[in-house]
Amino acid sequence: MPLQERCHGAYRSALPRFQTVRGMKDYLPEDLAKRRLIERIVRRLFSLYGYLEVETPTLESYDLLAAKVGEETRKSMYAFKDLGGRMVALRPEGTAPIARLMATKLRTAPKPIRLAYLWDFFRYDEPQKGRLRRFYQGGFELLGAPGIYADMEIMTIAANLMTSLGLRKPSIKASHVGIIRSLLAKQGMDEERQNAILALADKKRYEEALERLKEWGLQDSIIDLLSNLFSLKGSIDSVMEEALGYLKDFPEAMDILKELGKVLRYLRDLFSEVEFIIDLGFARGLEYYTGIIFEGFTEGLESAILGGGRYDKLVELYGGDPTPGVGFSAGIDRIQLVMDEQGLFQGFSLEKPLYLVPVKGDFMKQAMDLALKLRSSGVPVEVEILGRSVTRALRYAEAKGFRYVMLLGEREISQGTVSLRDMERRDQRTVKIEELKTLLENERTGDLAAAG
Amino acid sequence: MPLQERCHGAYRSALPRFQTVRGMKDYLPEDLAKRRLIERIVRRLFSLYGYLEVETPTLESYDLLAAKVGEETRKSMYAFKDLGGRMVALRPEGTAPIARLMATKLRTAPKPIRLAYLWDFFRYDEPQKGRLRRFYQGGFELLGAPGIYADMEIMTIAANLMTSLGLRKPSIKASHVGIIRSLLAKQGMDEERQNAILALADKKRYEEALERLKEWGLQDSIIDLLSNLFSLKGSIDSVMEEALGYLKDFPEAMDILKELGKVLRYLRDLFSEVEFIIDLGFARGLEYYTGIIFEGFTEGLESAILGGGRYDKLVELYGGDPTPGVGFSAGIDRIQLVMDEQGLFQGFSLEKPLYLVPVKGDFMKQAMDLALKLRSSGVPVEVEILGRSVTRALRYAEAKGFRYVMLLGEREISQGTVSLRDMERRDQRTVKIEELKTLLENERTGDLAAAG
Repeated sequence: MPLQERCHGAYRSALPRFQTVRGMKDYLPEDLAKRRLIERIVRRLFSLYGYLEVETPTLESYDLLAAKVGEETRKSMYAFKDLGGRMVALRPEGTAPIARLMATKLRTAPKPIRLAYLWDFFRYDEPQKGRLRRFYQGGFELLGAPGIYADMEIMTIAANLMTSLGLRKPSIKASHVGIIRSLLAKQGMDEERQNAILALADKKRYEEALERLKEWGLQDSIIDLLSNLFSLKGSIDSVMEEALGYLKDFPEAMDILKELGKVLRYLRDLFSEVEFIIDLGFARGLEYYTGIIFEGFTEGLESAILGGGRYDKLVELYGGDPTPGVGFSAGIDRIQLVMDEQGLFQGFSLEKPLYLVPVKGDFMKQAMDLALKLRSSGVPVEVEILGRSVTRALRYAEAKGFRYVMLLGEREISQGTVSLRDMERRDQRTVKIEELKTLLENERTGDLAAAG
Repeated sequence: MPLQERCHGAYRSALPRFQTVRGMKDYLPEDLAKRRLIERIVRRLFSLYGYLEVETPTLESYDLLAAKVGEETRKSMYAFKDLGGRMVALRPEGTAPIARLMATKLRTAPKPIRLAYLWDFFRYDEPQKGRLRRFYQGGFELLGAPGIYADMEIMTIAANLMTSLGLRKPSIKASHVGIIRSLLAKQGMDEERQNAILALADKKRYEEALERLKEWGLQDSIIDLLSNLFSLKGSIDSVMEEALGYLKDFPEAMDILKELGKVLRYLRDLFSEVEFIIDLGFARGLEYYTGIIFEGFTEGLESAILGGGRYDKLVELYGGDPTPGVGFSAGIDRIQLVMDEQGLFQGFSLEKPLYLVPVKGDFMKQAMDLALKLRSSGVPVEVEILGRSVTRALRYAEAKGFRYVMLLGEREISQGTVSLRDMERRDQRTVKIEELKTLLENERTGDLAAAG
């Protein structure tokens, strides 16, 4: 959280002049190292599932990014004219750029295409817990593959991500936009009206949605049916049973629901530690979904940490060949926030270099040469370059949390050794330079063995 | 390069609707994997030299970013008002955000502080070879350390980066802004005029600079001296000798030049494969430099692939305590471009997963279960989810460049095996699932041994 936000009225005038803009954060070393750890787990899944990482520019044509994201996201976009007069924007989500790639550079690549990304996104939302104006998402997109096996693969990755991260009480909530859409379409409601209803459902404004449908002349029995569906949420089996009862006169909606059940039961069998829920009142804000939709949750955060679904029309919209797609993205910053709260970073610490101190300024050159030699054999070294005395250097090492200090004096230089001081055990030994690397590796193993 | 730019007049109307904005590029999988390789080498140096990675937002206050970057960069900034009416911009370089961090969140951290970054930057420049409007830079900043040992450390990293990457004919060109500045200051030229002269020198418009100095009333002997200095470029020893002759009446400038020589001679002794040059007509466009400045080059690209210098006043400017700083950043995209041209990615290829094909649709569930099992033991697997026949699946495997295909049929399922087909050797064997991982690892080692 930016310093700015932790301060109030009276103190503000004493603040330094420049801060991060509201809602955007600095990642200091430890914070960033934790993010990198999450990113490594995400990238490991890219590799294990055969998804190839791509990257598109942060800045794209406004029309591309705005086309199908839905009204709420559209209004929160950072949009402006560049110096050439183009209307551009910072990307608010990843599926539109992926669809653009499919419609252009990847148009003729053999299908299916599995793409992955780890990008930053921008939305001018009101900042709150787990919501930043610049945030990272990791995404998986499976393109050119219709059908439930593709849905299963994508949701398997989503579940696998939650278990790989070790998140507490992971759960996945799912629905299928086809159920509501097919019911509305059968009553003659066009896509625009379907979108309006799903947008209201997304905000849980069900009463308003039903009111609107009444105005549009929908018959009472259908409105009752929708009202029942909107409130159906629970385990796969219980929701399936009740919903199939409601839908007995609507075979298309029934078939869609059965498919949803098949996908979720498959996942339930694979991931006993993840809770799977059907929520028929659930819709996602983005307009481009055409099939299954889902979100992932964990203990301690009300908002979803991942979300996705099927979008079979999007690539076409961007001028490509008809290309079905299904994918999801996970909020890296949110995941980091909950992992911190859930204590999942326990024992985590930044790598510390060896700290090399020439005992006199005269030995500076020798110290820098030795540092370079050690680094070339893979040992991280920080050289004392301010000319601190040994006493002051040890105080600095303490403040920085360094474990090892190497002192380099006349005797050490003539013998090809260093005096290695262990700040934790408070002992000091003379070590030959060639033996330093092995010794440190053994120490680490020894520490681990002792700790374990 | 965006498709858009490769097309001309008549073809334009046939293009798909959306492209990247001019001057920004998509990183497709192979391209991105090469960038990641460079990033890994850069990050390895972060670790070996004890530099801690940080990240600041892409978007910052315009005033912060514009303050000291120099007129040319300032004019190329992507600046706009956000929805809250704040004047913001996309960062054009990394030193200002680092200085902001030092002036705020890292103000009280023990000095020196070694920070590193790998960020994207934005400049509205005319796109050309090695120059994009969105580009990546990796940077090293050493803060709180005055003096030549800090300069040596930063330039050692710069040289080490070039040798780690294996760049052909690496060279480093250096100067010290104090030489020209001290001469001008002694003649009563204020900082603004010094900046104007250095900005002209940066563009190699020396005649114009000398003309301007004449207008400002500078005496002819000094103008002659400057004219001589501007044209001095060559090996450390030859430039030092000639320049010390010119500067004999200017002890301050002489001392600065001697320091520069000391730093460069130290580096020359360490890196015999790097050519070191002094160029006294060299200036860098950014206004914040106060000491040594340098740029790195390699065969085949006229523009610098890295550049940096000392900036002792910047942190103060941003409201922090007086904090000397020295650092550099390297252009990741430019490095990738030249490495490609220099053939340094030879033998590079994307990791390919095993391709698992159920021989009948009925075996889909078993295939997905097996895939999950293999992945959990660390083996990347792609499942055939489109229901392709074996013949068509093998054709797809060929097109994708997969080495191994696993066929899963009734016999294999009942035996706990797969039929493993090697697309390169065109043979097929039955392999027990438990033995698959070891077998593949041995194959790879064997292939390497055979190749090596």
